[in-house]
Amino acid sequence: MRTGSATASEDFEPPALGEPYLLTPGPLTTAYAVKQTMLRDWGSWDGDFRAMTADLRRRLLALTGDTKSEFDCVPMQGSGSFCVEAMLGSFVPRDGKVLVLANGAYGLRAAQTMQYLGRAHTLLDKGDYLPPRGDEVAAILDADPAITHVIAIHCETSSGILNPVAEISKAVYSRGRKLLIDSMSAFGAIPLDINDIRYEAMVSSANKCIEGVPGFGFVIARKSELEAAKGRSHSLSLDVHAQWAAMEKTGQWRFTPPTHVVAAFLEALRIHEAEGGVAGRGARYERNRDVMVAGMRALGFETLLSDRWLSPIIVTFFCPAHANFAFDRFYELMKEKGFIIYPGKLTVVESFRIGCIGRMDEHVMRRVVDAAGRSLAEMNVPDAAPPRTALDERAKLAA
Amino acid sequence: MRTGSATASEDFEPPALGEPYLLTPGPLTTAYAVKQTMLRDWGSWDGDFRAMTADLRRRLLALTGDTKSEFDCVPMQGSGSFCVEAMLGSFVPRDGKVLVLANGAYGLRAAQTMQYLGRAHTLLDKGDYLPPRGDEVAAILDADPAITHVIAIHCETSSGILNPVAEISKAVYSRGRKLLIDSMSAFGAIPLDINDIRYEAMVSSANKCIEGVPGFGFVIARKSELEAAKGRSHSLSLDVHAQWAAMEKTGQWRFTPPTHVVAAFLEALRIHEAEGGVAGRGARYERNRDVMVAGMRALGFETLLSDRWLSPIIVTFFCPAHANFAFDRFYELMKEKGFIIYPGKLTVVESFRIGCIGRMDEHVMRRVVDAAGRSLAEMNVPDAAPPRTALDERAKLAA
Ligand SMILES: Cc1ncc(COP(=O)(O)O)c(C=O)c1O
Ligand SMILES: Cc1ncc(COP(=O)(O)O)c(C=O)c1O
Repeated sequence: MRTGSATASEDFEPPALGEPYLLTPGPLTTAYAVKQTMLRDWGSWDGDFRAMTADLRRRLLALTGDTKSEFDCVPMQGSGSFCVEAMLGSFVPRDGKVLVLANGAYGLRAAQTMQYLGRAHTLLDKGDYLPPRGDEVAAILDADPAITHVIAIHCETSSGILNPVAEISKAVYSRGRKLLIDSMSAFGAIPLDINDIRYEAMVSSANKCIEGVPGFGFVIARKSELEAAKGRSHSLSLDVHAQWAAMEKTGQWRFTPPTHVVAAFLEALRIHEAEGGVAGRGARYERNRDVMVAGMRALGFETLLSDRWLSPIIVTFFCPAHANFAFDRFYELMKEKGFIIYPGKLTVVESFRIGCIGRMDEHVMRRVVDAAGRSLAEMNVPDAAPPRTALDERAKLAA
Repeated sequence: MRTGSATASEDFEPPALGEPYLLTPGPLTTAYAVKQTMLRDWGSWDGDFRAMTADLRRRLLALTGDTKSEFDCVPMQGSGSFCVEAMLGSFVPRDGKVLVLANGAYGLRAAQTMQYLGRAHTLLDKGDYLPPRGDEVAAILDADPAITHVIAIHCETSSGILNPVAEISKAVYSRGRKLLIDSMSAFGAIPLDINDIRYEAMVSSANKCIEGVPGFGFVIARKSELEAAKGRSHSLSLDVHAQWAAMEKTGQWRFTPPTHVVAAFLEALRIHEAEGGVAGRGARYERNRDVMVAGMRALGFETLLSDRWLSPIIVTFFCPAHANFAFDRFYELMKEKGFIIYPGKLTVVESFRIGCIGRMDEHVMRRVVDAAGRSLAEMNVPDAAPPRTALDERAKLAA
């Protein structure tokens, strides 16, 4: 094992011996320096840890361009879904109504969360990947004055599509409604500047584009919304107002924080800053995507999405039509070569996904492509072209 | 830094240079080997991690004496309070009614959780520390046939009292009701064998007596209760049935697990087993308590509780009456000497707490006492005796 102290200028070291790269949208491969911070214990009540929490909140807020101090950051224990639920339960009044924009698993999960909350909602379900567009949103809002809030998924990780949140935001606010954003897999690499895109609150988590390890998420919300959230939550644990009020008063998390994960995240934030913040991080991921997609296409693979909608987060490829191809075998062959890939989440056709995020660069992506080529050869799949049905499916996007 | 591989037989190494011992009831001081496991990343979908999850569940279940396979273990992201809420929301039917037994902050938090859930409950509030007794519980249950469930706090960490869960369980089941236990700070060191104490479900978390790092908790429940919990939860994220069903089906956590914290916990479970399981762990903590309490008493400090109720988890001491004593200063002086202690949670008198749990033994506890003595001297507090009011307060327990 090495003692690594990762900085932006430093080469991207490979993971420790025998450890595969995670080409998955979080948990992902993190810098060794991030993990090394977890080699000590912190008392959560102690001033040293309170200072770490304050630093974390300040650094995250800075990524939103909140120069007028209108927003605040509230970290929350649990996974990203816990934060989505906390946001919905805290910012949607009990008599509010939410329009959920879905084009994949995470949009549908937001709708399911509303079901649990027992608060009114309506669903625009675009299927596996088609983007919800501004004019569609405007039409639905015009037709239903009861709708108070809209929730959009920034990057819908189940297909990898980058949804058009700017045009959605315009539609929402032109109709006098409020926007909530699930930016889980995008925040930190794709700009979500409050000066460019209006929203009331957004959520993300530690183990995505900031490249921390999993264990908590965070809500960034307008302070007026945080204040209004008092008494609304359906859940003690997921009460954003209560967590915020306690942090403001005591500097502590209300309940035991994942201290080691927080320490790791702070180091991840420092590396993020050294890499040039959102712009620098985003540029690396775009390069990862471009190199990887070009290589995979050269092998005959086809992406689900056209270039316009491809996020620099994760890319969905159709499984080859060839009879010798089986995803489970492909997964194992890729893992043997040091790369963990991700199964697809499309309902209609077979697919798999390769992530572009985490502690890796274009050199790694070239090795991913090389591994994919060798795995195809080992499976005796001479041609990676998808079935006709996949291409028909894709044609819908162009239409 | 050292490369430590902690085993039960090995001496208890001090924390890394400059790192204080955490004499707090979690986060606590963990073995270096536990933290070292966090130096790599895992894919949460991958078979290797699924095997880790299965191992974790199996090992935790084994600690309950579940030889007939009537129970199952469901880990849950978030802090311990998330698990308490998940347990209440999943096992109490919407038309059920809960008797909450409170003698401190965590009992009151359970009642507050019921308030959020909007389900019927009634509170037996014994104040800062007086234990809820079996006959009191029986009387309340006799008087109110609507009560379906009772929740008890095993070790009420806010005072350190070990509540009489065995007699409470007898009272509950003799009246045909069901018991839920918050064993957050006790499980793993104090027996909670289902063959000796009947209950439907209990919760604890990673960063208490198993000595892992914080980031998740777990519910251990009767399978029939897990099945009956379907559709009851008020929360998607905290739905114990859904988490259980997904784990049974796929071997995965429903949402992103705190992979590093899970890996650390597995190492902690191995060390726990090597130390002799619940009995071995409990014996070390008892020795920690006995040595520490004897030493503190010799300095003139007085415990809130009489020996009969003192848990081997954490001990509350009254603050000295002497005018020169100030807790904040005492805290800093102790921290300078390498020990983080904990403020008290009593409402009536000033107090502080010293934990007995975590990776430390009686030798460390002797140094704690020595540090307390030197800190008193530095503060010019010649006498650690508590104020008269504190002793009056304590007299209630004897009465
Ligand atoms: C867009 C989006 N929303 C929500 C989630 C859920 O996050 P978690 O798995 O941490 O609960 C994810 C996870 O990848 C995601 O990508
Ligand atoms: C008995 C008891 N219940 C609940 C909790 C809450 O756990 P957490 O702080 O992890 O939410 C604690 C924490 O110490 C506890 O001791």
